[in-house]
Amino acid sequence: MTDVTISDLPLREDLRGRTPYGAPQLDVAVRLNTNENSFPVPEDVAVAIVQALAGQVRDLNRYPDRDFTVLREKLAAYLGHGLTPEHIWAANGSNEVLSQIVQAFGGPGRSAIGFTPSYSMHPIITTGTSTTWIEARRDDDFRIDRDDAVRIVREKRPDVVFLCSPNNPTGTALELDVVRDAYESTDGIVVVDEAYAEFARAGTPSALTLLPGRPRLLVSRTMSKAFALAGARLGYLAADPAVIDALRLVRLPYHLSALTQAAACAALDHADELLDGVEALKDQRDRIVRELTELGLRAVPSDSNFVFFGGLHDSEATWQALLDRDVLVRDVGIPGYLRVSAGTEAETTSFLQALAAVLHSASTQ
Amino acid sequence: MTDVTISDLPLREDLRGRTPYGAPQLDVAVRLNTNENSFPVPEDVAVAIVQALAGQVRDLNRYPDRDFTVLREKLAAYLGHGLTPEHIWAANGSNEVLSQIVQAFGGPGRSAIGFTPSYSMHPIITTGTSTTWIEARRDDDFRIDRDDAVRIVREKRPDVVFLCSPNNPTGTALELDVVRDAYESTDGIVVVDEAYAEFARAGTPSALTLLPGRPRLLVSRTMSKAFALAGARLGYLAADPAVIDALRLVRLPYHLSALTQAAACAALDHADELLDGVEALKDQRDRIVRELTELGLRAVPSDSNFVFFGGLHDSEATWQALLDRDVLVRDVGIPGYLRVSAGTEAETTSFLQALAAVLHSASTQ
Repeated sequence: MTDVTISDLPLREDLRGRTPYGAPQLDVAVRLNTNENSFPVPEDVAVAIVQALAGQVRDLNRYPDRDFTVLREKLAAYLGHGLTPEHIWAANGSNEVLSQIVQAFGGPGRSAIGFTPSYSMHPIITTGTSTTWIEARRDDDFRIDRDDAVRIVREKRPDVVFLCSPNNPTGTALELDVVRDAYESTDGIVVVDEAYAEFARAGTPSALTLLPGRPRLLVSRTMSKAFALAGARLGYLAADPAVIDALRLVRLPYHLSALTQAAACAALDHADELLDGVEALKDQRDRIVRELTELGLRAVPSDSNFVFFGGLHDSEATWQALLDRDVLVRDVGIPGYLRVSAGTEAETTSFLQALAAVLHSASTQ
Repeated sequence: MTDVTISDLPLREDLRGRTPYGAPQLDVAVRLNTNENSFPVPEDVAVAIVQALAGQVRDLNRYPDRDFTVLREKLAAYLGHGLTPEHIWAANGSNEVLSQIVQAFGGPGRSAIGFTPSYSMHPIITTGTSTTWIEARRDDDFRIDRDDAVRIVREKRPDVVFLCSPNNPTGTALELDVVRDAYESTDGIVVVDEAYAEFARAGTPSALTLLPGRPRLLVSRTMSKAFALAGARLGYLAADPAVIDALRLVRLPYHLSALTQAAACAALDHADELLDGVEALKDQRDRIVRELTELGLRAVPSDSNFVFFGGLHDSEATWQALLDRDVLVRDVGIPGYLRVSAGTEAETTSFLQALAAVLHSASTQ
């Protein structure tokens, strides 16, 4: 074929010059860059998932249950808080759930607000549906000030408010007062992205507790992190049943495959075992915060399975020097800071040793 | 929770009053309403797919290959025509592929045209991305007249042209001249939706043959029909590599799960066996056309795994009467017409007998 490039195509104007989202997928010994769960699926849970998948394969000639009824039952039971299947929605990763939310409640002439630095897919998903993105900033401690949030939401009148708790990439959970007050300040949708909720420190409440009586409040979750199922792509949501009805208007029919539904159901049947790794990862996360602080760095308190740390003289150079030592972490583009996922004890040790060596070598140059 | 309805929510204006897309999922003995492949996945292919899935499950804690490299290799090899992995894209069903196309090349202020009656998801996908939908009509034989197509494309200047071949719901493939001339008439994207290509009658060429030198031509396919994998949700596309680069700008990262990739790869390794059912379904399709014509109905010539037939006095009543006899077909909303999928020989016999009885009973009432 001819030597055509993307600029020769009639691409949508606002996509010109963009690059695809995504961290580098590199073959490195210690991969701590995408907040994956470092623990593989336990053998007996894997067997149960394979059995569930095997039960579907002969019948793959048929379309899957468009309403993923059994999966919604199991997700409701897992979440608790009095939720029923009618309160639950799911899609291929929480990115698709968030995208469906903005499709239903955003669109041209509408806007969504986020408090940055936060999950960088929120603005991409927002502008992807031709919704205007409004950026509000977190304070110097990467927290959302309640009064600031109320003021800016009242002033900007966004149709969708993104709150990320625990926040990615900075790691800290949000006080529920902020969610409550943001909700009162808007007639729009408030989405609390709780992708990392299961890693929160003791005593951190979930926004799920706020759902009763708040039909415009949506709490999104994922099985990618605590459930160690990033490869299966299952994000989900709890909200008023009317919200679920709205999302049905924008979902593509049969968006969740029979295999996805079966794998997620089997995983939920073994939730206790899959979540076993969570405590170990929290221990390693706390260890990272402690040891980085001892190294003289600024480690942000974390309710997630990763730690955001600053105080680096040249974070890009540090990222590369860690990669040269076979440790892959995440540069989210904030000068002086990097993000690292808590791994197994061995992976975490590798990271901490590599970082200490990198810092030592930099200071003696 | 409270008694909230969808109208209490700040839904996007143009979604108000809509109902979700999708045929009824009813538990009926003979299901011939969604053009599924009636043959289950053969036992030994199922075993191979389960083995491929089992190879992924322990590692589901990791994100899948974002570029689904192996799957693109296998899809390119299956399609032939000199295509390489760089020409291939895939997503969760061809609906998602089409949606990504309109996201990349449509959007607010842009438009897409289709020749109706055609696949009813084309306008839904178009308006879902706030792209303007332009409807052109097929002639009385449900064909696209080449000169008419050229004229209307020149006049309306759409950014995306949808051509469906074989056309759903009417069944007939398009002459390549129409594709060629439509392409010459526009600076926009031309999508040929070939979901049913493998069922075409002998001598019907694919638009894949037109790809060289036409960077704005996109040919979409699916594994849902000929491959009997509707439940696995795998649609794909062949086009110039620059088009693939454009689609990467709008895809959600990791949109294809590790399970989807593994199942599709294993299926492609057994393409010959999976496609074995195609000839049997074509025989039943030709039998339906023949027997419906003998019943005095108008059966549209079909290159797909379904038959569109008219001449019904009351198609809604006929649909219900068939359902009462445990045969589910599709009412696509065109008065006097229904669509039926070719099934196994037994299913097809059930349909034909039920229809003959329904028509007989109507004529003697």
